[in-house]
Amino acid sequence: MTNQRHVWRLRARPEGTIKDSDLDYMAEPMPAMGDGQALVEVNYLSLDPTNRIWMSDMDQYMPPVELGDMMRGVIAGTVTRSNNPDLPIGTMVSGLGGFASHVVVDPGMVNAVRQVPGIPFADLFGSLGSTAVTAYFGLLDICDPKPGETLVVSGAAGAVGSIVGQIGKIKGCHVVGIAGGADKCRWVVDELGFDACIDYKSEDVGARLDALCPNGIDMNFENVGGDIMDAVMMRMNNHGRMSLCGMISTYNDTTPRGGPAAWPAILMHRLKVQGFIITDYAPRFGEAIAALAGWWMGGQIKTKVDLRHGLENAIITLRDLYSGGNFGKLLLEVKAPDGQA
Amino acid sequence: MTNQRHVWRLRARPEGTIKDSDLDYMAEPMPAMGDGQALVEVNYLSLDPTNRIWMSDMDQYMPPVELGDMMRGVIAGTVTRSNNPDLPIGTMVSGLGGFASHVVVDPGMVNAVRQVPGIPFADLFGSLGSTAVTAYFGLLDICDPKPGETLVVSGAAGAVGSIVGQIGKIKGCHVVGIAGGADKCRWVVDELGFDACIDYKSEDVGARLDALCPNGIDMNFENVGGDIMDAVMMRMNNHGRMSLCGMISTYNDTTPRGGPAAWPAILMHRLKVQGFIITDYAPRFGEAIAALAGWWMGGQIKTKVDLRHGLENAIITLRDLYSGGNFGKLLLEVKAPDGQA
Repeated sequence: MTNQRHVWRLRARPEGTIKDSDLDYMAEPMPAMGDGQALVEVNYLSLDPTNRIWMSDMDQYMPPVELGDMMRGVIAGTVTRSNNPDLPIGTMVSGLGGFASHVVVDPGMVNAVRQVPGIPFADLFGSLGSTAVTAYFGLLDICDPKPGETLVVSGAAGAVGSIVGQIGKIKGCHVVGIAGGADKCRWVVDELGFDACIDYKSEDVGARLDALCPNGIDMNFENVGGDIMDAVMMRMNNHGRMSLCGMISTYNDTTPRGGPAAWPAILMHRLKVQGFIITDYAPRFGEAIAALAGWWMGGQIKTKVDLRHGLENAIITLRDLYSGGNFGKLLLEVKAPDGQA
Repeated sequence: MTNQRHVWRLRARPEGTIKDSDLDYMAEPMPAMGDGQALVEVNYLSLDPTNRIWMSDMDQYMPPVELGDMMRGVIAGTVTRSNNPDLPIGTMVSGLGGFASHVVVDPGMVNAVRQVPGIPFADLFGSLGSTAVTAYFGLLDICDPKPGETLVVSGAAGAVGSIVGQIGKIKGCHVVGIAGGADKCRWVVDELGFDACIDYKSEDVGARLDALCPNGIDMNFENVGGDIMDAVMMRMNNHGRMSLCGMISTYNDTTPRGGPAAWPAILMHRLKVQGFIITDYAPRFGEAIAALAGWWMGGQIKTKVDLRHGLENAIITLRDLYSGGNFGKLLLEVKAPDGQA
């Protein structure tokens, strides 16, 4: 086995779009394991909107990645060396790791991945893991959807948004998505069963919301932020609920923008706006995964993985997220797991 | 009995501060009662931050007052003529009425006032009525305070804020108020028992919050909006709750300001921000009034009425609200009730 690893280290905090020079890709000696730790060979790296937050030093929900440190990322991989009997060699795990070919993990950072017969590993990790759990709790816990209510989902063709809308349909809601481009909108409606989808790149979002939500908007699952969020927020009904999951349109801002102009609607229409981070729900993941796996097996939830290849392509691939260049959950295959190459 | 009334009618929608010329004060023939209606002689007119909203045509929670119409206001008064056996002459009522000496009411618009022995009527109507109920539900229902948590209340010497902080103390919280001027701050701490109060007119609100809230802020009861709200919001702890009751600092704005710069904190710190309008809680008023009356009788809640006189002074008095010129619940005595002159 090699005694080198490849790794992306953060060199500078990006200003605006992530530049190639903001990170270094390098080969370096394999890191040493301490007591109780294990070495994981990374099979898949999840590329997520939140990666851009971790690169910045804005006020955030975890410590930012320090300059010079390995870029943080959610990974799935295989234990190849171990100082911990709870993580025997060969165990497949997922959890917090890094943009690297190999990472040293503490037991608390990862969980063993239980393979589910009939579900490909990339779907299981990419779409049905924390991504789907995010959709599940963010919609059900915060918005509490009722049959007949109208739900608007931004980032509707994205990893989380696509599942949010499908759960909304399972719950009997009128579901309108917002996505970028005709292909994505067609997929959201024709394949996923949303009632409608607005193409923000070619349509007037406000006017289309008026047309497609004749009874107003009861719930907003927000992935995008910025002007799209404002257009939705100002059309919300009394006692509307807004689940704030992400604001990807703002992560590359070089000057902070203010809050939404529609802010007074929170008072006037008695809205509830609530943010969440999926790790807060860890004790309840089992409940979500059981429901999601059942829906997936029953064909009520479909997922799409946009699988890319090669750790060296991590940053150019990641950039696609912020320009909408991905279609489905963006996942990087660093090294196919044994038997699945 | 007179066949004339005095009334304030809205002539123009104010731009910025309410101008004298925005309303007309006039004598006019007593309005006719229809079937089921009653004529109420107004004893007290409540002057409230929301009056300014009703004068505007911004998106709001009730229809705006139409130009030419009587200015809407919350009143307490005495039935002097009646076409409704449920509202016999002599009944004291309170509810939605207007800036007038007499108003015609439908039974659904007002409730009979039950006098409570030992509580002066002005306190009962001014401080312990819908004002205190607003504090009660806005804090307990939305913020769900727990002993030891830190609560920040803006407008702390105001009608609602003063009661919010006292309920916070009853619930075992560390309570920090924000008010304008040393006299108000002294009253809030020395008389009402808040742990501290920041004078936003002479102190750096952010620096004082840092000093007075060493464990961060778990709850914000927001009456003021604008920069003060932002300073609080950006210091909130994970899972903080923010009850949005009002934003009096913004009601005179001539150009709408954006939402708070601290908006991303909702996501990063998993905040819940919720607006409410007290009428939504009408079915549960009994619960609140019972608790509040008990606390008031037991000396755990103190109230202060800033009583002014004369309907003709309604607008100059109302303006005091937006400049902080009142001290306590602002109430206008239009005509003292019989036996209480």
